[in-house]
Amino acid sequence: MPHTRLDLDRIRAARQVIDPRFLDTPLYECDALGRRLGCTVSVKLETANPVRSFKGRGTELVAGRLTGQGRAAAVCASAGNLGQALGWSGRRRGLDVTVVASRRAPAAKLDRIRALGAELELVEGDFETARERAASIARRRGVRLVEDSLDIETCEGAATIGLELASGASPFDVVLIALGGGAMATGVGHVMKTLLPAVEVICVQPLGAPAMTRSWHERRVVTTESTDTIADGVAGRYPIPVVLDDLLEVTDDAVLVQEASIIAGMRMLLEHAGLVVEPSAALGVAAVLEDRDRFAGRHVVTIVCGSNVDLDAYHRWVRA
Amino acid sequence: MPHTRLDLDRIRAARQVIDPRFLDTPLYECDALGRRLGCTVSVKLETANPVRSFKGRGTELVAGRLTGQGRAAAVCASAGNLGQALGWSGRRRGLDVTVVASRRAPAAKLDRIRALGAELELVEGDFETARERAASIARRRGVRLVEDSLDIETCEGAATIGLELASGASPFDVVLIALGGGAMATGVGHVMKTLLPAVEVICVQPLGAPAMTRSWHERRVVTTESTDTIADGVAGRYPIPVVLDDLLEVTDDAVLVQEASIIAGMRMLLEHAGLVVEPSAALGVAAVLEDRDRFAGRHVVTIVCGSNVDLDAYHRWVRA
Repeated sequence: MPHTRLDLDRIRAARQVIDPRFLDTPLYECDALGRRLGCTVSVKLETANPVRSFKGRGTELVAGRLTGQGRAAAVCASAGNLGQALGWSGRRRGLDVTVVASRRAPAAKLDRIRALGAELELVEGDFETARERAASIARRRGVRLVEDSLDIETCEGAATIGLELASGASPFDVVLIALGGGAMATGVGHVMKTLLPAVEVICVQPLGAPAMTRSWHERRVVTTESTDTIADGVAGRYPIPVVLDDLLEVTDDAVLVQEASIIAGMRMLLEHAGLVVEPSAALGVAAVLEDRDRFAGRHVVTIVCGSNVDLDAYHRWVRA
Repeated sequence: MPHTRLDLDRIRAARQVIDPRFLDTPLYECDALGRRLGCTVSVKLETANPVRSFKGRGTELVAGRLTGQGRAAAVCASAGNLGQALGWSGRRRGLDVTVVASRRAPAAKLDRIRALGAELELVEGDFETARERAASIARRRGVRLVEDSLDIETCEGAATIGLELASGASPFDVVLIALGGGAMATGVGHVMKTLLPAVEVICVQPLGAPAMTRSWHERRVVTTESTDTIADGVAGRYPIPVVLDDLLEVTDDAVLVQEASIIAGMRMLLEHAGLVVEPSAALGVAAVLEDRDRFAGRHVVTIVCGSNVDLDAYHRWVRA
């Protein structure tokens, strides 16, 4: 039993709070993709829901908790997907949501945050600047700051993906998880190590945003000066210490992949699975492409975690 | 209670036979799409499974029945999706599957049929030529001919989509169903008229392949000399009489849409829902585009029934 901040009973209970539209997502083998990658590939698809990413699982718990406490407002920093998800969960519950994002975030994500009725504040700088600004707004207004990966609900929400993997029809050997702040990797990893300890849990991060992966390998928080990746959803620079502690408990490896592999992954998911995905969602396929021998003949599950992509950029990437 | 060849208890029992990967598919509101169409739009997504279309629901029943009877082989004509699905269901059960298809069917569909280990026989001519050829192979070899829409299992399989719509969280006003041979429309329609009689059931067919829709309006079988549509999945010319009888019982309208609307529908599903779909799966959105007043302000469910598309053609369509 791994020692993390997570707890299996709480994760199971979370399923009762999360809107069913975010639960029991498709999990299926993709023959065409597997043939090209030299292994058996199953896709866990987290894009077929109202916010097109897995983040709704966590924000449902956050928003449920807040309204249960009689809170009327919340603020979060977001690379784009958390903001949409919190906007969606907040709108359903009459919670005023403010999202702080980088002006450089994909326009599609920013537009959809606004469309959900959330207040959107844009900052110069990157996601870490947005985090600082969100914290300052929360202090000034006295409203709850929702912090991805630090707030246990965001990890528990993501962990429900793990429950679904564990109850799937086919056994598998490896799960590949996009690594950003760490909520998804710690959540899913906790469930794997508890229910399916033989499954290898591998986090995947872009070489251009390696802070958490470097921290994992050095077993201490390592920050970076900047990020340089198209995978905007996972481009943080300041890992959260307690999240790193959890991550070290429940993951077997953390690997870095090149931008070219992320693009090749997006292209393969389109061509062989008919899926439009954002760069972060192609990290798993990218990891297989960079180390085919490691995965040869094994059954690999990759979590396709989001599809909020600017189409013009997407077309440039996949058609290049 | 509608009088068709279908029966609710049998449809419910079908869920026990169909592989879970084809069941309980995503059903979710798509805000961005709804805003553009002037109505509330929910997507029932039938593409996130091993064969990328809804046809697996029916072939699971067919193949289960055949192996239960000790049969070792089956043959079907297919526009491409039935063949893949029967190939998949047959492979799991050790059933030899032969698929007859038109040489003009999308290469992606034909490649995937072969990759599943099915024997593929190509004919000059269209889907109706393939049907004749499949019947002759079945007679010659003494194996079971699987006939889409005529075989009750294909309708019952599709009807399980209706059960899932009926148990969905949100009430809705209209369901839009792609109309080809009629299995999906009669199956889903039967469940709607039984469990949700207030829901308007509308079939949508391309103007370039109008045989079943014309038959519906004239209440007798009308055939056509040829078809001319990119929606290869629904391009039949010879409606089956008993299927027409059922269709008349359980559907409220049958409409025809132009090719330009199908293309616009595919483009909107990509841009506002992040979904790659084959032309047949865009028929519902096309119907809304051609008659916005009819759907204004209503809650419309559209069944996104397949995503097996040749990407080169797809790119030409959506980027034009």
